[in-house]
Amino acid sequence: MAQYSIGVDYGTNSVRALIVDCSDGAEVGTSFFDYPTGESGVILDASDPNLARQHPGDYLGGFFASVSGALVDARTSRSGFDPSQVVGIGVDTTGSSPLPVDGNGVALGVKPEWRDDPDAQCWLWKDHTSYLEAEEITRKAREQKLPYLEKCGGTYSSEWFWSKILHCARVAPRVFDAAHSWVELQDFVPALLTGRAANPARGICAAGHKAMFSLDWKGLPSEEFLASLDPRLAALRGRLYEDAETADHKAGGLTPEVASRVGLPVGLPVAVGLMDAHAGAVGSGIRPGTLVKIMGTSTCDLMVGKGNVPDIPGVCGIVPGSVVPGMLGIEAGQSAVGDLFNWVAQQLAPSLSHFELNSLAAKLEPGESGLLALDWNNGNRTVLVDPLLSGLLVGQSLQTTAADIYRAMIEATAFGALVIINRIEEYGVKINEIVTGGGIAEKSPLTMQIYADVCGRPIKLSRSGQTCALGAAIFGSIVGGAHSDTLSAIHRMAGMKDVVFAPEPAAVKVYARLFALYKDLHDAFGTPGINPEMTHVMKELIKIRNEVRRR
Amino acid sequence: MAQYSIGVDYGTNSVRALIVDCSDGAEVGTSFFDYPTGESGVILDASDPNLARQHPGDYLGGFFASVSGALVDARTSRSGFDPSQVVGIGVDTTGSSPLPVDGNGVALGVKPEWRDDPDAQCWLWKDHTSYLEAEEITRKAREQKLPYLEKCGGTYSSEWFWSKILHCARVAPRVFDAAHSWVELQDFVPALLTGRAANPARGICAAGHKAMFSLDWKGLPSEEFLASLDPRLAALRGRLYEDAETADHKAGGLTPEVASRVGLPVGLPVAVGLMDAHAGAVGSGIRPGTLVKIMGTSTCDLMVGKGNVPDIPGVCGIVPGSVVPGMLGIEAGQSAVGDLFNWVAQQLAPSLSHFELNSLAAKLEPGESGLLALDWNNGNRTVLVDPLLSGLLVGQSLQTTAADIYRAMIEATAFGALVIINRIEEYGVKINEIVTGGGIAEKSPLTMQIYADVCGRPIKLSRSGQTCALGAAIFGSIVGGAHSDTLSAIHRMAGMKDVVFAPEPAAVKVYARLFALYKDLHDAFGTPGINPEMTHVMKELIKIRNEVRRR
Repeated sequence: MAQYSIGVDYGTNSVRALIVDCSDGAEVGTSFFDYPTGESGVILDASDPNLARQHPGDYLGGFFASVSGALVDARTSRSGFDPSQVVGIGVDTTGSSPLPVDGNGVALGVKPEWRDDPDAQCWLWKDHTSYLEAEEITRKAREQKLPYLEKCGGTYSSEWFWSKILHCARVAPRVFDAAHSWVELQDFVPALLTGRAANPARGICAAGHKAMFSLDWKGLPSEEFLASLDPRLAALRGRLYEDAETADHKAGGLTPEVASRVGLPVGLPVAVGLMDAHAGAVGSGIRPGTLVKIMGTSTCDLMVGKGNVPDIPGVCGIVPGSVVPGMLGIEAGQSAVGDLFNWVAQQLAPSLSHFELNSLAAKLEPGESGLLALDWNNGNRTVLVDPLLSGLLVGQSLQTTAADIYRAMIEATAFGALVIINRIEEYGVKINEIVTGGGIAEKSPLTMQIYADVCGRPIKLSRSGQTCALGAAIFGSIVGGAHSDTLSAIHRMAGMKDVVFAPEPAAVKVYARLFALYKDLHDAFGTPGINPEMTHVMKELIKIRNEVRRR
Repeated sequence: MAQYSIGVDYGTNSVRALIVDCSDGAEVGTSFFDYPTGESGVILDASDPNLARQHPGDYLGGFFASVSGALVDARTSRSGFDPSQVVGIGVDTTGSSPLPVDGNGVALGVKPEWRDDPDAQCWLWKDHTSYLEAEEITRKAREQKLPYLEKCGGTYSSEWFWSKILHCARVAPRVFDAAHSWVELQDFVPALLTGRAANPARGICAAGHKAMFSLDWKGLPSEEFLASLDPRLAALRGRLYEDAETADHKAGGLTPEVASRVGLPVGLPVAVGLMDAHAGAVGSGIRPGTLVKIMGTSTCDLMVGKGNVPDIPGVCGIVPGSVVPGMLGIEAGQSAVGDLFNWVAQQLAPSLSHFELNSLAAKLEPGESGLLALDWNNGNRTVLVDPLLSGLLVGQSLQTTAADIYRAMIEATAFGALVIINRIEEYGVKINEIVTGGGIAEKSPLTMQIYADVCGRPIKLSRSGQTCALGAAIFGSIVGGAHSDTLSAIHRMAGMKDVVFAPEPAAVKVYARLFALYKDLHDAFGTPGINPEMTHVMKELIKIRNEVRRR
């Protein structure tokens, strides 16, 4: 008798449901739903590019629409499929995306009195308004010689839980006071589906990577430390949580109300939530030695390790069980990748599609444009952990085209990826293979080839086009009893495509020269106290350009 | 009895004729002609952005079309106008734009066997292919402790006469061998009109500013020095010239052939030619203490001085009589100004006109975009004299628009202008007023206001919209006998508009902070051995941006 699992993936712009055969990972139905609120689902503020919020009222509707659609799709595409064969649901979401809730766990943002207040909505992962608070948290944890930053790269980020809540307390005290507690989106959705809103199951993934939760110090940071930031944070601590679970645990069963809306069994097990990239790593078949890059608007880099993994400066998090239960999860990432390509396409090449820009950029040889960029338009997450950085483009002539810039942006993100790879390996964690998943890996072979050439390593592709939803579904299959543990579920349900992007020696050579220049810019603009000579940068770019053009 | 003069201005993309009343400078007729060859009149090479040539066959046709058109216009717009009332013609052209000619002074580029060879055409001012030769000329003049660089800022440019000819000798020896001599465009056109092609009158303007001609060393650089570059250059020296004249001298009289084609008197005096910006300075009413900025695709800065003017490092030239006969002409400039705005408009904002980009950019406050650029997409002429520099843009977020970049480019050129102003004043030459002429001054009040705010000085506008052609006409009026000397002709025929762009204190303050950052980038990327700390640049831009947005 067939068994299916549903993965529901809450992304930045839309929610996507995927129905998967638990025996082999075959994808039998899918559907997605664009969040109706904001610009492509994101509430922005023209006066502050750091602000990015999401309306929590879109989440339940997104579940209904995407899951119902996926079930219809499955009935059509697989004969004999019946919703009663679904054994479990897994949920992944963006993160750290905390939202304020009342005493019943109801999101403030859906209440009429707060409906139009951006500060009462979900504070989306890419919101960078809290950079001052992040600096303060980092400074005070260091001053007080507390271990809290050890597992998150040594620097707390403006993208994370406590920075955002502290910023809310300061800029929107009315919202802060109205909130009984705060919930990560990864925990909010399963709680909503299982009627546990007032007492949600908390997943270790966001808790460990974003909220400084660790068994090493018995949970969240101490009241004393939080009080040193703001007494109101200390008071909040008791209204948060003391335990956090891995995603192979059940958060609860589907409520009758939700079950009837989508036509699934009442009480259907729903797994503890986790963050999208971590689910994507599972959906990409992660194992020790594999670096999974989930590439979308931003990129998240995941590895798993057994035994001792050292703390790696600038690498966002090392958390037990955050990816694969029983193993350490290592997370790094880049704040903007697809968002950079979108930026060029929308702002600088409004008449060209991504497909056309890819075609034009693919006609260029490495080094031919003479351009070099830093991929910091949205700050730098790894390894500098600094949201107060910005984009840089150098090497423009009067003939530089938008397609030249588009390719330079792809290359810049590849250089940024190589900085992360080098940092991880410098600390003794060996990377044996690189697997990519996510939208860009699917859509842009050019990007994959550039990554292979820049990194000098083969780039493999996750078999699924929806790795995050597949990862969530894998956890759904476990809580539904189809598999006994995560690694065996991964083995059965995840895999890679046959195609591999192999590095081309000529390109590798040019990119090694360009990467040296990238590192100079990276260090000069990103690291205080390092003042490399810069006059060679423009000249070397012109030299490379001329050499390539004369070939 | 009315007296008129004609100024003919050979620009980068077109030639323009202007008929002026000698008594008051009133413009009674004008017409222009777009060069038919190349892209907007410029022959380009997709494989080398440094290359820019012009087909010499376009020049005589351009004279016929523009002068005929202007005469028709004058007959319509001023009653009683008759071509017989024209007393003289002045000619200005781009420069240094040398072209190879045969023994009869015929341009190689118009001969069938050379028609399609870019190296046989006119080497346009903005051609930067000769950067290696420029470096060699600079190095050898310094090594041999020769004074030749003293009058041209201490560094010879790839845009100039000898660099281009030497490069031609090396990359296109067949063209070099076929050339009997080389003529600057400013001398070629008057020679063509007056039948003196085989023995053209040479103007001091290009000779002194671009060919290291000076009475201090009895003309052109010595055969010995030229031989140290290439024996073929030494051999060429004797086929060039020994004298150079100011533009208040007559080059010759209009030939019957040319005169009959346009309906002007045979033998009509034609003045010795000069370069466009220098003519523009005259047309803008230059006098001691006035900095005239002729702003077009590039910007040329001109001043005149009496008595002792020191050599100023990085300032392109100090030549007796090059602007106003009897006074020292001081020339500086920026390699790309309008070309930068065109670059943004054409490559990054193809759906927006310059007018629309100006409107959008005008909505921004100084500092609001968070962007900062270096204006070096076409290298840096003053004060770094380095064609191997390139553009740089920093401060991009994911919301940065093409209009933001457009404004950043205007600001970058204003910062570049301020670097020049500061350098000139540091050497004791006081600037009492700034007058702008040229297309941008006419079309973009936003640019003028930004220049006023960045420089912290009022910006005045030349009265004429065609200052270069007016300046040429002023010299036509002198050789035609309508005025006895240049200053009195300027006094009668040139002037300024009533409108003055005054600096706004709030903007001045913000731009002072941005200029400090511009200087850091300028020094870091442009000056070997200076390694300023750069990590403050992005953070200070974000700080300024946030302050401005919160106002």
